[in-house]
Amino acid sequence: MKKFTSVQDVADLKDLLQEAQQLKQNPYQHKELGQNKTLGLLFLNPSLRTRMSTHIAGANLGMNVMVMNLDKEGWALETQDGAVMNGSTVEHIKEAAAVLGQYCDIIGIRSFPKLQNREEDYNEDLLHKFISYCKVPVVSLESATRHPLQSFADLLTITENTPAGKRPKVVLTWAPHVKAIPQCVANSFSEWMGQADVDLVITHPEGYELADEFTQNAQVTTNQQEALQDADFVYVKSWSSYTDYGKVLTDGEGWMMTNEKLEGTNNAKVMHCLPVRRNVELSDEILDGPNSLVLEQANNRTYAAQTVLKRLLEGLK
Amino acid sequence: MKKFTSVQDVADLKDLLQEAQQLKQNPYQHKELGQNKTLGLLFLNPSLRTRMSTHIAGANLGMNVMVMNLDKEGWALETQDGAVMNGSTVEHIKEAAAVLGQYCDIIGIRSFPKLQNREEDYNEDLLHKFISYCKVPVVSLESATRHPLQSFADLLTITENTPAGKRPKVVLTWAPHVKAIPQCVANSFSEWMGQADVDLVITHPEGYELADEFTQNAQVTTNQQEALQDADFVYVKSWSSYTDYGKVLTDGEGWMMTNEKLEGTNNAKVMHCLPVRRNVELSDEILDGPNSLVLEQANNRTYAAQTVLKRLLEGLK
Amino acid sequence: MKKFTSVQDVADLKDLLQEAQQLKQNPYQHKELGQNKTLGLLFLNPSLRTRMSTHIAGANLGMNVMVMNLDKEGWALETQDGAVMNGSTVEHIKEAAAVLGQYCDIIGIRSFPKLQNREEDYNEDLLHKFISYCKVPVVSLESATRHPLQSFADLLTITENTPAGKRPKVVLTWAPHVKAIPQCVANSFSEWMGQADVDLVITHPEGYELADEFTQNAQVTTNQQEALQDADFVYVKSWSSYTDYGKVLTDGEGWMMTNEKLEGTNNAKVMHCLPVRRNVELSDEILDGPNSLVLEQANNRTYAAQTVLKRLLEGLK
Repeated sequence: MKKFTSVQDVADLKDLLQEAQQLKQNPYQHKELGQNKTLGLLFLNPSLRTRMSTHIAGANLGMNVMVMNLDKEGWALETQDGAVMNGSTVEHIKEAAAVLGQYCDIIGIRSFPKLQNREEDYNEDLLHKFISYCKVPVVSLESATRHPLQSFADLLTITENTPAGKRPKVVLTWAPHVKAIPQCVANSFSEWMGQADVDLVITHPEGYELADEFTQNAQVTTNQQEALQDADFVYVKSWSSYTDYGKVLTDGEGWMMTNEKLEGTNNAKVMHCLPVRRNVELSDEILDGPNSLVLEQANNRTYAAQTVLKRLLEGLK
Repeated sequence: MKKFTSVQDVADLKDLLQEAQQLKQNPYQHKELGQNKTLGLLFLNPSLRTRMSTHIAGANLGMNVMVMNLDKEGWALETQDGAVMNGSTVEHIKEAAAVLGQYCDIIGIRSFPKLQNREEDYNEDLLHKFISYCKVPVVSLESATRHPLQSFADLLTITENTPAGKRPKVVLTWAPHVKAIPQCVANSFSEWMGQADVDLVITHPEGYELADEFTQNAQVTTNQQEALQDADFVYVKSWSSYTDYGKVLTDGEGWMMTNEKLEGTNNAKVMHCLPVRRNVELSDEILDGPNSLVLEQANNRTYAAQTVLKRLLEGLK
Repeated sequence: MKKFTSVQDVADLKDLLQEAQQLKQNPYQHKELGQNKTLGLLFLNPSLRTRMSTHIAGANLGMNVMVMNLDKEGWALETQDGAVMNGSTVEHIKEAAAVLGQYCDIIGIRSFPKLQNREEDYNEDLLHKFISYCKVPVVSLESATRHPLQSFADLLTITENTPAGKRPKVVLTWAPHVKAIPQCVANSFSEWMGQADVDLVITHPEGYELADEFTQNAQVTTNQQEALQDADFVYVKSWSSYTDYGKVLTDGEGWMMTNEKLEGTNNAKVMHCLPVRRNVELSDEILDGPNSLVLEQANNRTYAAQTVLKRLLEGLK
């Protein structure tokens, strides 16, 4: 593996999942692999789970891990070609990425979308330029349009909670939030589910349609109750509008997930990528009850990251 | 040992002190103990000594150490049960603690009191909830009402500077400051001295009485000169009022510790937890002179932390 | 070696350069040297290259590396002797340095000049006090007047790009910038070149003369075109005025380095310490072209730092 930015970087998804399950059983069996290798984790936006789980994943593989919160500890990067840099950006991504690529064997980078210009965000300009200039394997720690380590951990969690041979019904349901949220997690989850042995249904209010490229294998409906019928897994997530880009179109009354709504499901397990706004996106009763998988998902972040890092390390030779 | 939040978590104080002295002699003899174990250090308030000494203590034991300044690099935590999280808190402590408990084998956490609502602070709500939800051993890196690693290092320093068999007179004296300071260090020092082989006298201006629970074995007086008489150790520390909660009641003129005030003592050693406001709490002449133990105290922070981490690691099995 | 703050701390420059080249060939051959040794990296100003390269240098030597952004994660230091600390400074450098010196075996420290009072900056008060109080070897990560790790890496880069036996012509040329920049890099580069087998020419607009102490072995001219004639290396760098201290005296029109200006040179290699303001200091065409050495310089930062740390570790015995 040479980079990990979406499910399209995965040659064989089943094989990847199996390796993750093996690493979870015995996380320290490959400590030699990362000897004298440096993992740089670069954050242009805050992170708790991603930072900690990826740090541990690197350490489990014997790597030297360095974390850099570029937004707070460093300076603003310029991404435009040909820019006359007489403004507030201090360093061009050409230099920053190339230098970090010399210091690190593998680089993880997180950068959120600005949610102001759809084309700009969906071009994934920063991520693509960083990959192009740094010249070492890059793992996305969440980008403008995707969060593949999250989706990998999500799929691992679904796999672990599905009886062998069963093709579960998975529902991605939009949730209210107090602010405009990127589409990354929803996009990425849809894209990964589309490649997995599941039936995916997406439900959201009018105007919250995700970009077609992510939802080709999904059934989409604005009727949440109908969507939830017989669901085995319910993935709750807020996102802002893709069509009316970055906007919040409704206060989402009635869309919060509750135990009552789970009644029509197949005793569905409930998932969320965290952090979650309690009693806005999801009710306390679900999060504190037996159907919640949110902690299992978070725990699987370590093994998803470790599997990816292991493959990137193996690809270094 | 399953947690370390106060002297009450210590079964045998003499034994703990002996182990700290042994570790100080040979800090690297237990590097196998922490192999493949992760120590997460979580700061909701700034730290220099605590962060660095605890980091080194973990490294001395072979642990993988991760530092997270949640206040600056992360987001605000919600602690209220049942909260509808439509405000500024981004994640509930239930999720944050539980996730970190999955990532880390031992967690250290620092959180200062707000000094606005006494009951809220003295309930130690955040610390107790964090311990309850994270499910792994927690070491307090200073909480709303106590700073036990500091007090352990202080007692170690007093022990090292006391002739065998002697029961020293220890005076805790209030000092002026430019702002309202928590009672944590004073509370915790009083509590630890109350369990040790020392005679403790506490002196402060009217209105600065500490909570009874911490001072049961101490003699208390508002006469500083009398208190200092024949003292072997003088611990200088500012704190805001407990009774008129969080308030500064006096400019404290005349309460700064000086060489002149030491004249009535038994050539007392002078202590402070640092950072110290020079020529406000303590005069330059003391800090730069032979009676100061402040650097020995800071140095002992490493061995106090290492002793605690060693015991928490041993308790993991 | 007991400290590294300028070229004057280097006994034999040729020997230092040779060792750096050896370490670059085999960076992991001395991993035992740093076992159980802690490197503390203290930043009072932001850093990307210095922080990452020095971190890796320490890790390559087997050290435990701790990074502390004191400006953002800690508090303001007092440096004045005898200060009554009733203002905004929270800790005196006497205590902060002494404590860190107890925790760390080697300390790196970065602190920029304020560019307001020349005498204060050029006294290097903070650096000298830190060294004096911490009592362990200190490596400057850039100080008020010098950036020796950068200059060492620069000289290493020049050496690697010069045919054996040749004495190259090196030109340091002032460049425009959007803000007032310290003289550190220019000072330090001049000082190191003055000790090396090169002919140094410095060129800048009127009023940008560097302090004499750094430029004794250099030829200085305000005629950039003349200076560049037959140059083998062109080092581009902005700095504010030393004589009219900290001021920007001109918008520097015409001083930006371009391919056209390189025409009179000996196909000169172009250098810059980074971060660089593209199309303000240097044109895109140079940075993206074959004459740029800026990435080689950045890469050599690791080996410069590692050579210095190795010597400081060897000096610990």
